[in-house]
Order: sequence, then C-alpha cells, then structure tokens
Amino acid sequence: MSGKNNNGGELVRKERIYIYDTTLRDGQQTPGVDFSVEDKKAIAVLLDDFGMDYIEGGYPGANPTDTSFFEAKQTKKAKFTAFGMTKRAGLSASNDPGLTVLLQAKSDSLCFVAKSWDYHVHLALGCTLDENLESITASVQAACNAGREALVDCEHFFDGFKANPEYALACAKAAYDAGARWIVLCDTNGGTQPAEIHDIIQSVAQVVPGDHLGIHAHNDTEQAVAVSLAAIDAGVRQVQGTLNGIGERCGNANLVTLIPTLMLKPYWSDRFSLGISDDKLKDLTRLSRAFDDILNRAPAEQAPFIGSSAFATKAGIHASALLKEPKTYEHVPPETVGNHRRVMVSDQGGKSNFLAELQRHGIKVARDDSRLDTLISLVKTREAEGYAYEGADASFELLARKSLMSVPEFFKVDSFRCMVERRFDANGNLITVSEAVVKLQVDGEQKMSVAEGHGPVNALDIALRKDLGCYQDEISDLELVDFKVRILNGGTAAITRVLIESGDASGARWRTVGVSDNIIDASFQALMDSVIYKLMKNRSLAGIGLDN
Amino acid sequence: MSGKNNNGGELVRKERIYIYDTTLRDGQQTPGVDFSVEDKKAIAVLLDDFGMDYIEGGYPGANPTDTSFFEAKQTKKAKFTAFGMTKRAGLSASNDPGLTVLLQAKSDSLCFVAKSWDYHVHLALGCTLDENLESITASVQAACNAGREALVDCEHFFDGFKANPEYALACAKAAYDAGARWIVLCDTNGGTQPAEIHDIIQSVAQVVPGDHLGIHAHNDTEQAVAVSLAAIDAGVRQVQGTLNGIGERCGNANLVTLIPTLMLKPYWSDRFSLGISDDKLKDLTRLSRAFDDILNRAPAEQAPFIGSSAFATKAGIHASALLKEPKTYEHVPPETVGNHRRVMVSDQGGKSNFLAELQRHGIKVARDDSRLDTLISLVKTREAEGYAYEGADASFELLARKSLMSVPEFFKVDSFRCMVERRFDANGNLITVSEAVVKLQVDGEQKMSVAEGHGPVNALDIALRKDLGCYQDEISDLELVDFKVRILNGGTAAITRVLIESGDASGARWRTVGVSDNIIDASFQALMDSVIYKLMKNRSLAGIGLDN
Repeated sequence: MSGKNNNGGELVRKERIYIYDTTLRDGQQTPGVDFSVEDKKAIAVLLDDFGMDYIEGGYPGANPTDTSFFEAKQTKKAKFTAFGMTKRAGLSASNDPGLTVLLQAKSDSLCFVAKSWDYHVHLALGCTLDENLESITASVQAACNAGREALVDCEHFFDGFKANPEYALACAKAAYDAGARWIVLCDTNGGTQPAEIHDIIQSVAQVVPGDHLGIHAHNDTEQAVAVSLAAIDAGVRQVQGTLNGIGERCGNANLVTLIPTLMLKPYWSDRFSLGISDDKLKDLTRLSRAFDDILNRAPAEQAPFIGSSAFATKAGIHASALLKEPKTYEHVPPETVGNHRRVMVSDQGGKSNFLAELQRHGIKVARDDSRLDTLISLVKTREAEGYAYEGADASFELLARKSLMSVPEFFKVDSFRCMVERRFDANGNLITVSEAVVKLQVDGEQKMSVAEGHGPVNALDIALRKDLGCYQDEISDLELVDFKVRILNGGTAAITRVLIESGDASGARWRTVGVSDNIIDASFQALMDSVIYKLMKNRSLAGIGLDN
Repeated sequence: MSGKNNNGGELVRKERIYIYDTTLRDGQQTPGVDFSVEDKKAIAVLLDDFGMDYIEGGYPGANPTDTSFFEAKQTKKAKFTAFGMTKRAGLSASNDPGLTVLLQAKSDSLCFVAKSWDYHVHLALGCTLDENLESITASVQAACNAGREALVDCEHFFDGFKANPEYALACAKAAYDAGARWIVLCDTNGGTQPAEIHDIIQSVAQVVPGDHLGIHAHNDTEQAVAVSLAAIDAGVRQVQGTLNGIGERCGNANLVTLIPTLMLKPYWSDRFSLGISDDKLKDLTRLSRAFDDILNRAPAEQAPFIGSSAFATKAGIHASALLKEPKTYEHVPPETVGNHRRVMVSDQGGKSNFLAELQRHGIKVARDDSRLDTLISLVKTREAEGYAYEGADASFELLARKSLMSVPEFFKVDSFRCMVERRFDANGNLITVSEAVVKLQVDGEQKMSVAEGHGPVNALDIALRKDLGCYQDEISDLELVDFKVRILNGGTAAITRVLIESGDASGARWRTVGVSDNIIDASFQALMDSVIYKLMKNRSLAGIGLDN
C-alpha cells in the first residue's frame, strides 16, 4: 500500500483502491449477452489472473447457471462474491429462502442489493421504511455470522438521496453499523452527473468513512468512468465495473479504461495504488480481446487504451511530428497496456506517414527515391477508386513491395468461374447451390479445382486453396477470420469494397482489400492478396509490422 | 437566450452554449472513415437542419475533396467553417500560400489551429515562441480583415499549460487580442482528467472571458463528454465534438451524448440553453442512425440516449417495477430523443408496439387475434436469424400482410442461376463476365430471361425485371436507390444481410431485407420483396406508412 512517488526516491503512502468486477453479474444484463457456466469459468480465470480484488460471479438461486457456478469457489486470489437481495420484510433471516440459498453459495463474500430510495421501498418492496432498514441490518449480520464478508449495494442511492437524503443516509449507516465491509453507492439509472456524485459522496463520507464506500456507475450519459473517478476524488475506495464496459442499457463503468487511467495518469497514480502490477497491466489489451472472443464479437477499434486505433494516427500534420517525438503525441506509452502505435497510410497522409508505415513493415527506402513518389501516387489513385489501405496493412505491404522491389510469383490464376443456382430439388424443396472452379499454374503445372460453398465467395475461397501444389502444406493453417463488404455508392451495379482479415497458427493477423463493381472480383483480389501474403510471411519476406 | 426554469413560471436568464460540429474535419481523421464530397454534402444538410451552431467542413487546400467542398457555402443557418493552419513564420499573411487558399474558401468563419505548447513550437514549427505568437495575431487579423469570423484552436493547450503556463496563456491572449471570436482549448492527446481541465480553465478565464472560450476534447480515457462538461462548469461556452463521437484514435467528444445531456439533465438545463429546439431533439436518434447509414456501419446498440438498448431492460429484478413506474427507472424519457423503451420480456407493452407499427402501415388487427401472436413470434425468430426489420419497413409490411391477411401471388420464380467468370479474352485481356438466368411463371405463362451485369447481383436484378409479362409496364419506374451488405459474423461462410432501398417515379422510397449464408440468395430475397411491394403499392394494397 505504499510506493515511490514520481518526484523522487522518497517513499510516500498511497491509498489503495479496490477493484470490484461485476462482469459476470451486471454484465449478464447486457442485451445479447448470455453466459454459460463454462463461459463464466473461463472469464473468472482471466479476471483472477489479472488481479481484480473482487469477482462478483452472479446471483445464486436466481437461475440454474448461477446456482451451478457457485457450487465451488472459482477464484484463487480474488474475493469470490455472490449477489442477492436483502431478506424480505416479515421473515427472519434464518427463514428467508433467498438468503438461505445465498449463504449456501461457495463464496468469500456476499453482496446484498438494498433499496435506498424511499419511493422504491414502497413501490418495489411494499414494506415500511423501517422494515427495509431492519432487512439490511439482519442480512448483513447473517452474512457476518456465517463468516463471510458482507457488502451492500445501495440501489438508486443518488436519486434516493436527492428525494430523501436522511433515508438514503440511514440505509448506508445501517449497513455500516451492522458490519458491512463496503457500502456501495449505486447510480442505478445512470443519469447522475459527476459533480453531483462528488457533492453527495462528500455528505455520505460524514456518516460512513470513505475507505468503506464504493461506487457503481452506469454509462447512460457516457460518463460512467468520470463518475467513478469523481467518486474516488470525493473519498470512495472501491470501484465497481465490467470488462469492456458491458452491462444493462448503456453498460457499466469500463474497468478496461478505469484501471489504466488510475495506474498511468499521474493525477491518480501519484495518490493511489491498485492490486494490479505494472507487468499485469501489459496484459490489458489481450484481456479485453480475449473477453470479446468469448462474447464472439469484434473488438471496438476506437476503445480507449486497448483499441486497435487507440494509438493510431492518420493526419499528415501530426504524423511527421509524431515520428520525431512520439511521447508528446501519446497520452501514455502504448506498450504499458500491451498495445502498439499505428501510423496509417491514407489520402490524408504525407510522405512522412508513408516512410513510417514502410519502416514498420521492414521496408527501407530513401525519402528522395522516385519509386516512393510512384508508390504514393499509386496508393492515392487506388484510394480514389475505393481501396482503403489503412484497414488493409497486408495489401498495402504487397503493393509497396511490388513497387519498390520484387515479389516472387508463387502461382498464377488463369481463370475462375462461380455459379449460384437456386431451384427445386427432386423432393420439391427450394435449394441454392454455389460452386466455383479455379484454374491456375503452379511450379510449371496446370491445376484445376472445383468446390461447393455456402455462397459464391466461400466456394471460390475453397477452390482457390484446394490445391496450390507445392505450397499446399504451408497454407494449411491459413484461416479467414473476418470478411467485410462495403458498397461504396448506389444500387446493385455499385462499386464494392471487400476487406478480409486472415490469421494463421502463429497467432498473426493480416488484412487485405479488393475493390470492383463485381463483388466476386473484389473478394477474389482480397483472397489472392491474403494467400500471397501468407506465402511471403512464411519466407520472412513480409510481416515485420504484424500485430501478433 | 432566456427561458423558463424548471422550478416555476419565472423567467430566468440562461447562458447560451454554442455547439461546434467537427464531424467533417476531425471526424475525417477516424480510421476507416473517408468522406466523399457527396457524403460531406449530405452530412452538412443533416447537421444544419438539426441546429448545430457551427459546422467545420474540412481543411481546404489539404486534399481535393475538401477544396472542392468549399467551392460553395454548404449551410443555411449554421456558420460554415474552414479549418487551416496559422501562417508560417517568416512569411507575411498575404504571402502565405496556405492562408491564401483558406481565405478563398466560401466559408463564414475560419478556424486556425495554433501551437500553444512551447515544446511543439520548436519541434513541429521550428520557429521561435514569439514568431508563433506573431503568426497567430497576423492570421486572425487577416481573417477579420477579410470579413470572416476567426476562431483559434489552441493545440495541446492543457499539456502546454502544464509545461509552460505563461506561454500557453500568451497564445490564447494573442488570439483574443487580435479579434478571434473563440479561443478553443484543445486536449489534443486526450489524456487530461476532468478536474485538471476545470482548474486550468479557471486560470485561462482570468485572461480570456469564458464566453470566448471553447473546449475540444478527445476520448482517450473515455471522458471526452465529462471533460467537455467540466469545461462548461469552469466557464467555457463553446463545445466541439462529432456525431457518434467519431474522430482520431478513440474519437472526439460525442455530440449525440453531449446535446441531450445539456438539454435534459437539470444540472445543466437549469443554467444553460442551446440553439436546438426540444422538437429537433426528438430527431436525435434518427440523426445518429442516418449518419451510421452514410458510414455504412451498424449503430452502436449500447450508445447513450439513442442506442437500441439505451432504454432496454432484460427480464429480471427491474423489469416488473419498470412496468409499474417507468419514470423512476429511466434517467430521461426515451421519446425526448426519439428513442423508445424496450422491455425484453413478452408483455403487453411489446404487443402495443406491434399494434402501433401495424397501424402505421394501415393494418388493423385485434389485440387478442392469435395471428398477431404468430406474427410476433415469427418476427422474433427472423430477427434472431439476422433480419433487421427496423430498417426494412416494406419487408416488415409484406411479412405482416402475409401472416394476417393474404397477398396476391403476382408471379412465381421457379429457379435462377448466376455465373461469374474471370478469364482472358481473345486479345489477352483479363475480363470478368457476370450473367444471370431467371425462370418464372406469370399469368399462366413460363418466362425465361437472361442478362449480363456488373456483378452477379446486378445481373440477377436485370434478369428478374426483364420480363414480368403483364406487370412489366408498371415496374418500369422501379429504381434501386441503395444496396447495402452487412456480414454478420466470421469468414467467407458468414451470414449476410442485404438491405435494398427502392424508389419510383412518385418519389416514394421503401426498404427491403434479405438474409442468408449466400449473398446471392440474400440479395434475391430483398429484390423480390422490393418488386412485390411495388406491385402491391400500385394497387394501393400497401404503403400507407411510407415516407415520401
């Protein structure tokens, strides 16, 4: 809990902030997210390994998944926490079935959600204000008596405080007096502004000490991170949030942003410390993307700190200075969170962008080399036609190598043909069949391959990669990870841009592009670039700048 | 600039906040975003109509698109603004080629970007600190002398202030003294925390009055909105941002969040007013989605205020109480921003939404009609498969009419076949040929049509509409206006969603959707729906809810 400050060798005491992850509980409220027990186990391992202080696993008793997940403790270091409601009014703690299930869960701690807005006590619980206070006290005591750490989430705390400050404070105080380790102030509806949060928490801290207070914020005005940080400035020492900010409605506070902000920005790191090491922080990008993989969704490119564009520059005016002195153009060094710098080639960029990008791909060329001007004008012409090289690093590299040096011709496609037929089969069912034929020359041999696929592009992809002769073995681990189509203008005769992301067993990823008024043609260009890039990469002729 | 406050009928003076939209300039720095002149014109119309005070159109002289865009003024109400650099040191304003181009742009105002961090003056400009001040003064004066309003973006202002407060302030003061209407404080690297922003701006306001100060924030710690609002609390009265928060790296401050926060949250709306009416605010959801359409990307479901999940609640502890009293579970009413509540359980509210939507299409059905339940479950199943009826009103209407009543079978497609062949022609040129054959029955006759096209979908479209027998004349004015393809997941075998927008001579527009793992199949479904919808519409059997 102490460390060196930035201004010298002197040891100063830093206050500890505790990170409470609710990905597996509040994150489960995200529209479209539905974790299996296996998903939950995999995510708990990621969170525990990263160094979260608390992992809230779910609401045992509320659904079979969560009940089963709490049959065993799922963490090694983090406090494994079960969520549930305070006991019902009119029942004793030992007779409340919900509380009984909660106490049976194999958890280190129990987090009770309690109403703290007088209106909701009447509306949702239908009991008196005093009965609600008694439920809080009895539930916390039952948890403590069972040897668990108790936490209380004060639901609607800030709206409740605005409506009836005495009662909201009485709820927080009841929980604290009964022995709760943390009283968590929840902005359940997500609309409270950071300055309001700050002021209200300063009042709460008169009643419950800040090192027993937590904050649970939602992103309904895009300020969940700011609200959480304002709460820390006002005294709270526990922050709740989720991986990638998933959660009900607009999501919860994003821990993937909060953690590096607290650890890397001097405004916070000079005063506070977390239970996560600088070394673990370098896993942040990987953690965030691994979680997206489990959710089966594409990582948000512009996400702070860990997005693929978080340290990307396109502008000509910034790019040249960025190269002279990256530090003064980046708010934190990308490698501290396991990310990397990206200078993009585009219509907007100047010669400096190009040189930097070529260097990243291991290509050295003199600034006054006339082939460089040819390449720049070629890229601009192609971008005007609809190519987008900033999202297609491998196609850019191939184009650059072809312009500046030579690229081996591994094989040559003489022709291809795709066919899609929709008709009734012998049983009267409507079926659609896609078939492709590719003719190519490789190593002096003529090859002809045919394949069926889910659609014409899939069939063409399979046929192209079915028999590449002497190269067949080395493309066996080539995998198409993503396929995007963008129609650039107008109706069915419009220009189509296809972007393909590929990967292989080494974990490398590369992106290629094709453009045509014919979607099959555009797809074929991007497929060809991907295969050729893979062959170049296998020979260490390409890929120096790849993100692995 | 004055209005009623919330606490009574008394008129109180509210301070005016000016919204400065930089979607077309800083938004263009977004990785993957590359506006055409036509895109820019369409976006400018949306922004101007919505009520933005300033629209920054781009950087004339930096690229052909922006130069061409500034050949005419593109706004009716908003101040149309050109962006550019201050004049170079060592040149007079009248001899500076960049400034000359800027002054030729057809804009109401000019926004100069100026260095305000001493380190960057040396690094990027290579001139003395005094020369930089002189450049600011001379550039602003040149703009004012040319009858334009001048603005100065102080780049890296906050980092600059931390390094050398006197110099940063001197830059701001030079701009103000020279006659700049606005001095905009830019957090160029995006890492400054809201509390730091607040403190620094309080110092700046000693030198330049707050109603001449603006804020330009980036989202690198997910706090661009919070930083902008903290700046307003500290005194600035102009806020820069972009639609949907696009922009360099992690994006700019999101105006789609900032505007409703300022207009709907009493913490702000009690003190400030904007140039946007409450009525226009109801267009916010449509504005945000129309912009995503132009970008051809899926709207962010969890985006604050306007996301499809922003007012969604999953079945659980909140849902039943929400239905009793929505107000206390929603931080603002969804209809104020043109969005709507979504409770993801089968409930009466869901049915009411359906009934309202059917009524909009001129379809009346009883609430207890079992065919309505069948339709609701069919729509839910199809949406789970990837159909998106929210953007495909005509396909929704056809599906509803087929479920609830009968739709005439105008013609029947027995089969189709598409072929794409890439080969060398007799002259040795590589050519790609696309051909489609459609077999259909119409009015008791068998028809077979063949056509060539730019690609397989275009060929299929032409063949399908080549000979519809007795219906051929009445589809002659059917036109495909837009064609969009979205890959829903994974590689070349992924599910594809095709959205087609059609129109006819009456000026009507309708949208249809198709989904399949085969892009040709998906396109064909959407094409068929469009043709059938047109035939229904000609008979006044459809189209009551059309937007003309």
